[in-house]
Parts: sequence; structure tokens; C-alpha cells
Amino acid sequence: MAELRKDYILNRWVIIATERSKRPQQFISKPERYKKGVCPFCLGKENLTPPETYRVEKNGKWVVRCFPNKYAAVTEKKDYPIEKEFFIQRAAYGKHEVLVETPRHDLQLWDLPIEQITLVLETVVKRIKALGQKYVMVFKNHGEKGGTSLVHSHIQIIAYNQIPPLILEKIKATKKYKKCPYCSIVKMEAKGPRRIYENKSFAAFAPFASRFPFEVWIFPKKHVKSITEVKDMKGLAEILKKILVKLKKLNPSYNFFIHNAPKGEDLHFHIEIIPRLSIWAGFEFGSGTIINILSPEEAAKFYRR
Amino acid sequence: MAELRKDYILNRWVIIATERSKRPQQFISKPERYKKGVCPFCLGKENLTPPETYRVEKNGKWVVRCFPNKYAAVTEKKDYPIEKEFFIQRAAYGKHEVLVETPRHDLQLWDLPIEQITLVLETVVKRIKALGQKYVMVFKNHGEKGGTSLVHSHIQIIAYNQIPPLILEKIKATKKYKKCPYCSIVKMEAKGPRRIYENKSFAAFAPFASRFPFEVWIFPKKHVKSITEVKDMKGLAEILKKILVKLKKLNPSYNFFIHNAPKGEDLHFHIEIIPRLSIWAGFEFGSGTIINILSPEEAAKFYRR
Repeated sequence: MAELRKDYILNRWVIIATERSKRPQQFISKPERYKKGVCPFCLGKENLTPPETYRVEKNGKWVVRCFPNKYAAVTEKKDYPIEKEFFIQRAAYGKHEVLVETPRHDLQLWDLPIEQITLVLETVVKRIKALGQKYVMVFKNHGEKGGTSLVHSHIQIIAYNQIPPLILEKIKATKKYKKCPYCSIVKMEAKGPRRIYENKSFAAFAPFASRFPFEVWIFPKKHVKSITEVKDMKGLAEILKKILVKLKKLNPSYNFFIHNAPKGEDLHFHIEIIPRLSIWAGFEFGSGTIINILSPEEAAKFYRR
Repeated sequence: MAELRKDYILNRWVIIATERSKRPQQFISKPERYKKGVCPFCLGKENLTPPETYRVEKNGKWVVRCFPNKYAAVTEKKDYPIEKEFFIQRAAYGKHEVLVETPRHDLQLWDLPIEQITLVLETVVKRIKALGQKYVMVFKNHGEKGGTSLVHSHIQIIAYNQIPPLILEKIKATKKYKKCPYCSIVKMEAKGPRRIYENKSFAAFAPFASRFPFEVWIFPKKHVKSITEVKDMKGLAEILKKILVKLKKLNPSYNFFIHNAPKGEDLHFHIEIIPRLSIWAGFEFGSGTIINILSPEEAAKFYRR
């Protein structure tokens, strides 16, 4: 059972995912989910994953493949909301899928050709549309410090019954302006000292208040609400590849996530890439303010070099 | 120079601490600030730290010692606020101190006798009062995953020109209730399935919406606004030691931080202890919702055992 629980008084939520639970002693040693040498995401090992939900084939073999996450953070069981003072919870209801980006174990996303990355992004769109729910969070965990447990390159998709608090915050903040603030921000940042790269449809920059060293945001130059509305998917693949190839020089763990508008709402779609070269510690968790030891202006220089 | 910068549109702040900055390539290898075998926090190595600001002596030798952090996250330079649309920044002005908890290199906080921990907490109070500023954030980073770079047991104190967003959120949420919600919460949690331990003055429990496996909150049973108002400091040292000794069985990295009310505001003082056995990844940073694979009820059982 996976439960969404709200903090006693703050609008801060957690998912208690007890199906992933371990005994206290197991937290000491690193989890080893699979025997060394056996990768369930590899070609020919399809029987080691839950039943496939989607695949793209070339020459009779899959090149991109989706299936439910064996260690789902959300549950398909029914909701049972509890609303007592200070104790608010409901089922974390939804589906949690894995998208394997390539049959090849030896390549990471930053190694793939633009055509294959385009295919991956098109598959993301297909799964967002198929999974529905209140919100679909698409994200990637790369490397040990990025929280991945399997090295074979993959993306995760969690479709669930809550609009994420951070998305709500962005929508609320957006509404304070007469027109989309991100449209203006992208225009400014694509020209200024934090600019990184732009192509016909997209611009990448290091955000003014970067929380992570080498953080990058990618925005479509024209306002679209969701990756599902992107027409120039190859352009998105191209800019993403450009950033990741640079990032590979540092070979860091990293995450990225996609921010789409939920149904009926407006938000300028974007992707945030956050390398994990720093550690959030007592000050960050205690204050909510993040210390970043690399300025975005320096980070942008690195990417432009 | 250390800058406080606000996100373009969200009330989310970062400190760009460029004095701590490194070149891109230096992010690849781990920082090694001091030669192996030379610990600047040890007895007899006082000349390796900035000039001392406070000490407690016993038999002519220091037993607790404070001095400015050589790698300060805040600056003592003057403020220079900039307020343009989407670009808001000011100096991160203040002082950043280190409090060395013991002259002994081989002992961690969880190893110290209650008398010494009491002394440490009393020193925290002294420094909060001496440093002033808008807010004083007191926190501990223990272990590599807790973000520490020096193993010699120490606490950090950042006194600076901003009330932390998380503190503001708690104050705002508190004001929605007729009386302090935490007073009621502590009473309930000290008896329920998430109870851990209590003594005459304090209660410890695993919070209902724990974000970290084995997270613990310590509250005074009677409402006080700040650790500076605590009368039974030995009681606080005793309950802190009780928790940490249990935690030591897992030998995790951990952080703790102290939440006091800022001047003129009200907040039920408490300490949050967050073991760092899990990694926040793409979902957490993308959604703002945290996945925790250990329920607080299980965590509490571990501590009660």
C-alpha cells in the first residue's frame, strides 16, 4: 500500500511507499536487487520485468520498451481518504512505469543518437496520454547519487491522483502576471549571461537562482503547455543531447524532470536538468534555502565552451 | 561574495556562495580540504582555524570551541539589494560559525556523555544570543551523505539576514489555529503509534508525514519559543542522546536542525533529526512530494526496541 500523507500543518506531502519497505537493518547495506550480470532491462531478459505496456520495434526487435515498475511508489488499490485534524492521508493511487531508452546496456541517454532520443521523447508523450490520472510526472534518475538502482538507461513515469505541490506553486505564481512570465524570462535568459544554447524551437539556460551546480532549464520559445503539444520533437532531442554531452564531461549523477500543465491549467512546459554534484545538508533542509557554490553564470560558461 | 537570489516567480531562495566556488573540473573529484592526519578541529591545532569567538574551558583546556567557518556560506560585506522583475537578489549577509563539540577526534556526538551534550547545547544558546541577526539557523551535518567535509564532531551556526522560508511557512500555518497546533500534536504523538521516548520536559516521535526513514522530531512538552528559553537543558541533552545512540546502530549519515521562533514571532521550538539513508531523486525534486520507503510507525518501533 502506498499512502499520500500531509504534514500536520504544512501543505507538504510524502508518499509512504510501504511496498518498497525494508527492515531497519537492511538500510545499512546497499540494496542489491538483481544478481550481478543479469540486467532485467536488457534485450532477451524481457521475462524478468512485469508485462510490457508499450514498445517501439525496428526490424522485429524492440528499441524502446515500457512496463510497470516492480517497486512502484504508487498503488492501484482504491482510495481511502482520511481527514482528521493534523492527520490527512489518502491512497497514493496511480501507475508507475519504466521506459527503457535503448536495448543496449552500454549506452546512456547522452550517448544515444538524436533519432533515438526523439523516439524516447515521443514514447513519453504516448505514455502520458495513455496513463491519464490527475498528473503524470516524468523523470530520470541517472547514477548512484541520482537515486537509480539500475544502470541500464531508463526514464520513470508516475501517473497519480495529485497535482504535485511544486506544479501548483508554479501555476499560482504564473497567475499573478497578466501574461505568461516564463515567455518573458526565456526571451531574456536566452540572450544574457546565463544563456547556454538555442535552436529553432528551444532555448536552454542556467536559471538565475540555480539550486544545483550546472543546473539547466530547457524551454520551448513559443508557449506550449505540455510536451504532448510539442511539434518539433527532434529540436527538443537535439538541445537535450547538446546539454547532456557537455554534462558527460563531468560524468555526474543527475536527474531531470518534465513540468507540464495539468489538464485545464496553464503552465509553460519545460524540462529541468539537475546534476547531483552537491549534497543538500542541515542548512538546506532546515531553512528551505539552498546553498549553491557555483554561480549559474559560471555554469553557463562551462556549457557554452 | 554570497548572494541571496529568489527564483524568477516562486518564493524559493538560494544562496550563491561564490567564495566557496570551484572550477568545473574540481566538481569531479572529491574536495580534500585538509591534509590527511591534520584535523584543524583537534586540541593543539587551534592555529589552523580562524580566530576563536567562544570557548568553554575545564582544567585550563577547552572542551567546546567556536570560530568562524573558513568556507562561510554568508558574507560580512554590506547589502546591495537588486529588485528587478524576475531578478531579485541581495547579499547573504551574516556570520557562519563552527562549534566543535569535543576536543576528542575519536568521539561523535552520539558517544558524548550527557553532561558534555548539555554543554554543547548551552553553547548553542550562547552563540544564538551573541550572533543576533534576523535568524540564526543551527544545524549538524554528520557523515559524508550528510554533507560534512570534516569528521571531527561539530555543529554549524548561520546567523543571517533572512527568516528562512520554511520557518515562515510554519509560523503562517501555526497562525491558522486558535492555539499552538504543535502543543496538541505533541500530546497526541507522545502517546500514539509513532511515540519514541519522553522524559520530564521533552517528547520524541516519528512524524506522521516523515520525509526520511527514521526521521525524529523532539519537542518540549510545554510551549517555549526557542532553545534559548529551555530551562531543563539536561533533559534535552538526555533525549537527544537517547535517539542518537539508537541511530548509531545503523551508523547513518544524518542532519539535525533547530527550529526557533524569530524575534517577535511565535513557534513551538523543536529539533528535527533526519537520517540520510535515502536519496531524493527526480520525483522528489520534480514534484515536491517525497517518497519514503519506511513508515514512521515502523521507524518508531525501531527506536522503542
